[in-house]
Amino acid sequence: MSAMPPEIRVIGIEGMPEAQPGDDLAGQLLDAANRQGTPIEPGDVIVVTQKIVSKAEGRVVSIDSVAASPLALSITEGHRRDPRHTELILRESRRIVRMDRGVIISETYHGFNCANAGIDASNIPGDGTVALLPVDPDASAQGIRQAIRERAGAEVAVIISDTFGRPWRSAAVNVAIGVAGFNPLLSYVGQEDSHGNLMFTTVIAVADELAATAELVTGKVRGVPVAIIRGYRYEPMEGATNQALIRDPDKDLFR
Amino acid sequence: MSAMPPEIRVIGIEGMPEAQPGDDLAGQLLDAANRQGTPIEPGDVIVVTQKIVSKAEGRVVSIDSVAASPLALSITEGHRRDPRHTELILRESRRIVRMDRGVIISETYHGFNCANAGIDASNIPGDGTVALLPVDPDASAQGIRQAIRERAGAEVAVIISDTFGRPWRSAAVNVAIGVAGFNPLLSYVGQEDSHGNLMFTTVIAVADELAATAELVTGKVRGVPVAIIRGYRYEPMEGATNQALIRDPDKDLFR
Repeated sequence: MSAMPPEIRVIGIEGMPEAQPGDDLAGQLLDAANRQGTPIEPGDVIVVTQKIVSKAEGRVVSIDSVAASPLALSITEGHRRDPRHTELILRESRRIVRMDRGVIISETYHGFNCANAGIDASNIPGDGTVALLPVDPDASAQGIRQAIRERAGAEVAVIISDTFGRPWRSAAVNVAIGVAGFNPLLSYVGQEDSHGNLMFTTVIAVADELAATAELVTGKVRGVPVAIIRGYRYEPMEGATNQALIRDPDKDLFR
Repeated sequence: MSAMPPEIRVIGIEGMPEAQPGDDLAGQLLDAANRQGTPIEPGDVIVVTQKIVSKAEGRVVSIDSVAASPLALSITEGHRRDPRHTELILRESRRIVRMDRGVIISETYHGFNCANAGIDASNIPGDGTVALLPVDPDASAQGIRQAIRERAGAEVAVIISDTFGRPWRSAAVNVAIGVAGFNPLLSYVGQEDSHGNLMFTTVIAVADELAATAELVTGKVRGVPVAIIRGYRYEPMEGATNQALIRDPDKDLFR
């Protein structure tokens, strides 16, 4: 037993400005963390919610600029969603998984299976605009990680998180859609448990658990778009990718 | 903006004895938390991993006591699992969801969709024993909650957690299989976001996010079967139930 019990801190970052296209998110989050007296430290996991990444990367679209196709019009008929919004969902998808009663579950070109291709209209200023997922959320995470290393001298892990529903269980949870600097999976395969039993299959999606953890402080209406998770000993990794978090289609019985 | 940034602490409880049938888990976790200098406080969320609950409730079975049915023998042929283990999976299930290449995804009589009816053989002493899920994990959670209230005078929320895989995303994460004292869902439906947009559909499964958070300190091989989550403002609720976390079968497109 260690002298101190294992402890993790989850700290929300408040006071960041409303994200604008071209914004330097890393600089903004470093400044805000300093201002509130919780500067970024080496070994921190920085969880950045998708919406501010999409905004900073200019992935906000006015639906007035979109023409709905016949398919989008037909899918949307009788439902609340604007058919131009539906059109954007189709454009961001590479496969429709299910389409029923106005719900569209699709596979994005990243490989994420989620509702509405991850597009939504909450926490966006003005009417008629929606935010698309970042084009390459791993690259978004890596960019923030490198900027933090250069400016604060801190080696950190970075996660871009989004809120996804899931089959079987109700409601939604935050998951990792982009990762940088750490292994998003923790494998116990081949290790022995505390009773000497060899574990054959246990692999934990720690990146998703970290994203879920951060959501407890970021929430949806509090103006806290970033969280620091401090004290979690991640496995450092270069070239980490969200693809590790996507179930191999050949092994997925529920596509 | 508040004077202090939002912060949550996640504290693992070490030094609990190996759980035995009939054990007083609440007493053991209160003692262990006191010994390590982190006594339980009002408002804490106490996350207890399923395995010690199953052990304390006597839900450990020697597979030597089980006879495999023809179905269990046929399903298991050519795969690594013991057919008597398969027999137990069938007995703990009320519906088989998918069965492929040795993998059994079933619906337990609680309503959980998971692999192997939640039965596993890790972190159990001795060969040939497996742990079944608690019969009523909400009752398990409520029992621990009441005992903590009576003995420590602290009103807390309690979660029983287990490690479940999921469609679409690889590996597994911890989720809540039993809840007591708080609303496992946080609904933003009808609230406005920071830009005045009305949110129509966002409901967060906070119980699952709390269970995932706890896994970051409990892990699988560290002898830390319980975590305290401190600083999360849950919504108190009597009569909370894990059924709120199970997607309505009529609205689940992936059964």
